[in-house]
Amino acid sequence: MTQKKKQAVVLLSGGMDSSVVLADAVHKGFDVHAITFRYGQRHGMEIEAAKVQAKSALVSKHIVFDLNIGQFGGSALTDIIDVPHNVESNEIPVTYVPARNTVFLSVALSYAESIGARDIFIGVSSVDYSGYPDCRPEFIESFEATANLGTRAADGEGHFTIHAPLIRLTKEETVRLGEMYGVDFEHTHTCYDPGPDGTPCETCDSCRLREKGFKEAGMADPVLKRAGKRESR
Amino acid sequence: MTQKKKQAVVLLSGGMDSSVVLADAVHKGFDVHAITFRYGQRHGMEIEAAKVQAKSALVSKHIVFDLNIGQFGGSALTDIIDVPHNVESNEIPVTYVPARNTVFLSVALSYAESIGARDIFIGVSSVDYSGYPDCRPEFIESFEATANLGTRAADGEGHFTIHAPLIRLTKEETVRLGEMYGVDFEHTHTCYDPGPDGTPCETCDSCRLREKGFKEAGMADPVLKRAGKRESR
Repeated sequence: MTQKKKQAVVLLSGGMDSSVVLADAVHKGFDVHAITFRYGQRHGMEIEAAKVQAKSALVSKHIVFDLNIGQFGGSALTDIIDVPHNVESNEIPVTYVPARNTVFLSVALSYAESIGARDIFIGVSSVDYSGYPDCRPEFIESFEATANLGTRAADGEGHFTIHAPLIRLTKEETVRLGEMYGVDFEHTHTCYDPGPDGTPCETCDSCRLREKGFKEAGMADPVLKRAGKRESR
Repeated sequence: MTQKKKQAVVLLSGGMDSSVVLADAVHKGFDVHAITFRYGQRHGMEIEAAKVQAKSALVSKHIVFDLNIGQFGGSALTDIIDVPHNVESNEIPVTYVPARNTVFLSVALSYAESIGARDIFIGVSSVDYSGYPDCRPEFIESFEATANLGTRAADGEGHFTIHAPLIRLTKEETVRLGEMYGVDFEHTHTCYDPGPDGTPCETCDSCRLREKGFKEAGMADPVLKRAGKRESR
């Protein structure tokens, strides 16, 4: 008799990091339910990438969840504010979407509790990152505590764990981990400000962090190859 | 020159408690932005009640936000599971919607941060309540801590406060407070399982708590009067 796998909910944006985390959850033996948010982002390319990743990871279920926090405004990812290019700063950038990960984790928590899962995976990192407050370990730990107080877990029905396997990894390490798992990097979408055909801009914060990762791992980024760009190394 | 009022986001379900909280926020001098969730609940009567309450409280803005956590299942309020009537129990009831208040507070947080508000009001109570874990003080305190770690507040840009003015009030005290503020109780909706014309069942947990409140306050509930019911006292 085969033992039933433990269920997990994985937040899947369709970017490189969440695709590696999806592979990580599968590799760790979880029965994966993936959730992707249509939250008012300016382009839907990452949602298409998420669908490809969910399919190739053979998840049990993939939900694209509508939740238009973009209507509140306040971010370059959902508003007509320009995405900055080639900018170095220590401040929280304009691409920060107010409380996005709190919202996404909460909905994932509702989904997890509804199906009886107690494990939630998210692809945040606090090493090579944009400085978003909701990507830091202290936020993830606090959310986990809140989750265990605001659900049936508070009455002893199983403890929720928020897994953030990339939280202390560099982009290089994330690329290497994904390579090890055989992640289809070509069908991940990272750029904040792509061309109409999906070509990455290569100068937004997100593209630059991705480039750094591939460069330091000594690998070619298949997305750039596909776009017919010259290798940046 | 008049001083600009501080903004607050108020979670408004259209029930008695959140309507009293709305009045409380207005009374305390906040410029109120109300948010109501269409989350897959089985009847839309509370949303209509919320619109009436928001209008009579002269809020600056009222958003009805779509977010279908009901699609995950797992609650009598969103599924075809029967709402229990006349049931006494110490367990979390089947009307609990998984992580509902975590989700609602998160979206309210995103809204608040987007408009520059730092105050969020919610009508939870842990005295005369259904036993939902996400109505208890320790959950609200933990959520507040998480909110201050997962937003710009973490980098010193203003501290978020989650106001739960009813959290230690009995239903009687809530009714009295609402009466003091002149809340239009007739246009609040409380029942989990109303008749097609909105008539409360008077036997679900929510109706019974409301009845207790009015009874102990020595007042007639105008909703029952409207429905042409005999006074239950």
